[in-house]
Amino acid sequence: MNHDDILKSIIKTNNSKIVLIVLDGVGDIRNPDFHNKTPLEYAKTPNLDNLTANSIVGRLIPVSYGITPGSGPGHVGLFGYDPMEVSIGRGVLEAVGLGLELKDGDVAARCNFATIDNHGKIIDRRAGRIPTERTVELCMILRDIKEIDGVEIIIEPGEGHRFVTIFRSNHTKIGPLINDTDPQVEGKSPLKAIGGDTPSQFLAGVVNKFISQGTELLKEFKSTNAILTRGFSSKPDILSIREKYMMEAAAIAAYPMYRGIASLLGMKLLPAPDSIEGLFETYKNNRQKYDFFFIHVKGTDQAGEDGDFEGKVSCIEKVDGALPILLEHQPDVIAITGDHSTPCSMRAHSFHPVPVLINSPFSGRDDVVFFHENAFNSGGLGFFESKYLMSLLLANGKRLNKFGA
Amino acid sequence: MNHDDILKSIIKTNNSKIVLIVLDGVGDIRNPDFHNKTPLEYAKTPNLDNLTANSIVGRLIPVSYGITPGSGPGHVGLFGYDPMEVSIGRGVLEAVGLGLELKDGDVAARCNFATIDNHGKIIDRRAGRIPTERTVELCMILRDIKEIDGVEIIIEPGEGHRFVTIFRSNHTKIGPLINDTDPQVEGKSPLKAIGGDTPSQFLAGVVNKFISQGTELLKEFKSTNAILTRGFSSKPDILSIREKYMMEAAAIAAYPMYRGIASLLGMKLLPAPDSIEGLFETYKNNRQKYDFFFIHVKGTDQAGEDGDFEGKVSCIEKVDGALPILLEHQPDVIAITGDHSTPCSMRAHSFHPVPVLINSPFSGRDDVVFFHENAFNSGGLGFFESKYLMSLLLANGKRLNKFGA
Repeated sequence: MNHDDILKSIIKTNNSKIVLIVLDGVGDIRNPDFHNKTPLEYAKTPNLDNLTANSIVGRLIPVSYGITPGSGPGHVGLFGYDPMEVSIGRGVLEAVGLGLELKDGDVAARCNFATIDNHGKIIDRRAGRIPTERTVELCMILRDIKEIDGVEIIIEPGEGHRFVTIFRSNHTKIGPLINDTDPQVEGKSPLKAIGGDTPSQFLAGVVNKFISQGTELLKEFKSTNAILTRGFSSKPDILSIREKYMMEAAAIAAYPMYRGIASLLGMKLLPAPDSIEGLFETYKNNRQKYDFFFIHVKGTDQAGEDGDFEGKVSCIEKVDGALPILLEHQPDVIAITGDHSTPCSMRAHSFHPVPVLINSPFSGRDDVVFFHENAFNSGGLGFFESKYLMSLLLANGKRLNKFGA
Repeated sequence: MNHDDILKSIIKTNNSKIVLIVLDGVGDIRNPDFHNKTPLEYAKTPNLDNLTANSIVGRLIPVSYGITPGSGPGHVGLFGYDPMEVSIGRGVLEAVGLGLELKDGDVAARCNFATIDNHGKIIDRRAGRIPTERTVELCMILRDIKEIDGVEIIIEPGEGHRFVTIFRSNHTKIGPLINDTDPQVEGKSPLKAIGGDTPSQFLAGVVNKFISQGTELLKEFKSTNAILTRGFSSKPDILSIREKYMMEAAAIAAYPMYRGIASLLGMKLLPAPDSIEGLFETYKNNRQKYDFFFIHVKGTDQAGEDGDFEGKVSCIEKVDGALPILLEHQPDVIAITGDHSTPCSMRAHSFHPVPVLINSPFSGRDDVVFFHENAFNSGGLGFFESKYLMSLLLANGKRLNKFGA
């Protein structure tokens, strides 16, 4: 029996409301340019500190020690799925990120417009990084290809030179075990698609025809005369939040990728205004309708990636300022954490543990009274893997029975 | 997918230098005879304390809760191998500890000279603990046996009544699945060697002939007239540090056993002077040539095993005094820890967590400013299994890509 087996055997439903606030990339490391503080230490957060004093806190390991997670594994873990087992393929993530709906059996691929020479060798894998508007125009042209061998072709432009292709078959089974046709280096020809099993072999044939028909349609455009594909993937075969936890879940997230992940897990997508107050207002207005709310704040990660310490501080202070909107109609369980750290000094996601806070009538409280990484090191939750957080939230919401006699 | 699979998929190489300092058995427990301090608390360690103030710290669980590791599992874990999966057999450990080089397919056994009576019953399993010099002489006699059934016999004396036999076959395959012929109790006859599979059955025949030929050679020596064998084992089938982490590794370790383990993992063995300054000097002189340095300090464990609290304190203070030699040419990543605890009051290895420190430009720092066990309890690394330390060192050395989209 493993953790998930136990969870399945003890889960129950009730009227408790659980709110998980993900401050994307909030974790950081002390910065010598800012009095050796982290943005959370530097920020003035009276409301978060006050909540901390009444809560239990600790540190989350998003995937495993030393592992820097992408947004996919980072969020999958927070929702209680094992990020080492559940992988959301690049094609799927890109597709749901663009707001496309994937059906069971669909295969999605991330595609690039690229430039090849007369001998078919790649000169530029990104077609000179053409602007999004140009990609929109080129995708309109590619949409002439509607179907190949009974497989429907759905094309959607992304950012810059990127687009997504979804392959949908209503008859012959198709599979995602297909290599990237993008050889990842210039000076080589694009690779042929080859399938790793029968359904994927069939789809690989379709992909090769799609690429050659597409290349034919593009041949007059010198710098965007080729298509590179990668990240073939299908919707992961995982339980929805409803199936796994017997909760109706809603996502309040403005960014497409996080809306996409939430949608893959069966969450209802609620409107998400740009402002942080707006996110909490949306919770307030929908709080009777769902059991579980995922509220996603992107600004912390964005500032981290930009190396903008003060921007990160400012975003944290905005969250602090907006917190009373949430507390006015306090849910039974509040968790505040991140999907990973994004230290400003590294300008990238990192492997560092993430601060986590849980507040409920049954959370207990420890001695920690400040909302930041170093204070949380000695909190009552200790250090643990993100994938166990949901179990703690369910337990705090009294949604788990006793295990064993 | 498990931790190792992920690591394999994200590992990359760069020029960062990583130094792992293992203070053997450094962990301890508070001692009522010394103001209720541990040796680390008692020792004056201004350099280590200063480093601590700029580092991130925590506690390592060498194998698992409550498990007291031998030196093999203790070190295997620090190098990022799962000590529950990778076992280095006793025969192999003894052989490499004596500086013998093992080839693939070799089988090594740890052997004792022993005393049997006229009925073949064991009177003394250790032959009255004869001195090493006598074992050297007896091994010279046994070396008359050069080969049995095409299997080469290599004999090397160890400490006291111990010696090692290596069985090397260039033709017929030999295997290590052979029982100990040492029955572990006196009053019984030595057991026959029996093989658990075909290659081991063949070797068991050779072993039985070796023992009977050896006994014949020894029959005139009343108190050393028998040979007991145990720990039949081959080189473990594990990746080298180079294969696993894409790093060139060097070991600076004076003691044969640790040189042996390092050599099994493909590390280059550098000269290791007796003094602790000398260990760091060797790093200094070779720092351009390798990516990863394992520096082993034995004195802490030795003092612990001797119950010599002051000796342990003195060794720790010597490390502290020599530390500036390392810091003068500071590597990108420094880790200081132990392979296990050896509390002076227990005079033996123990199960207690081990203090661990990581310093790098990306390690961050917590609130801990003293280098000792109890201060490290609230460090920013938390408590974690030794096998994850290497991943953290690689991450701090920026040798790992992001995992997942």
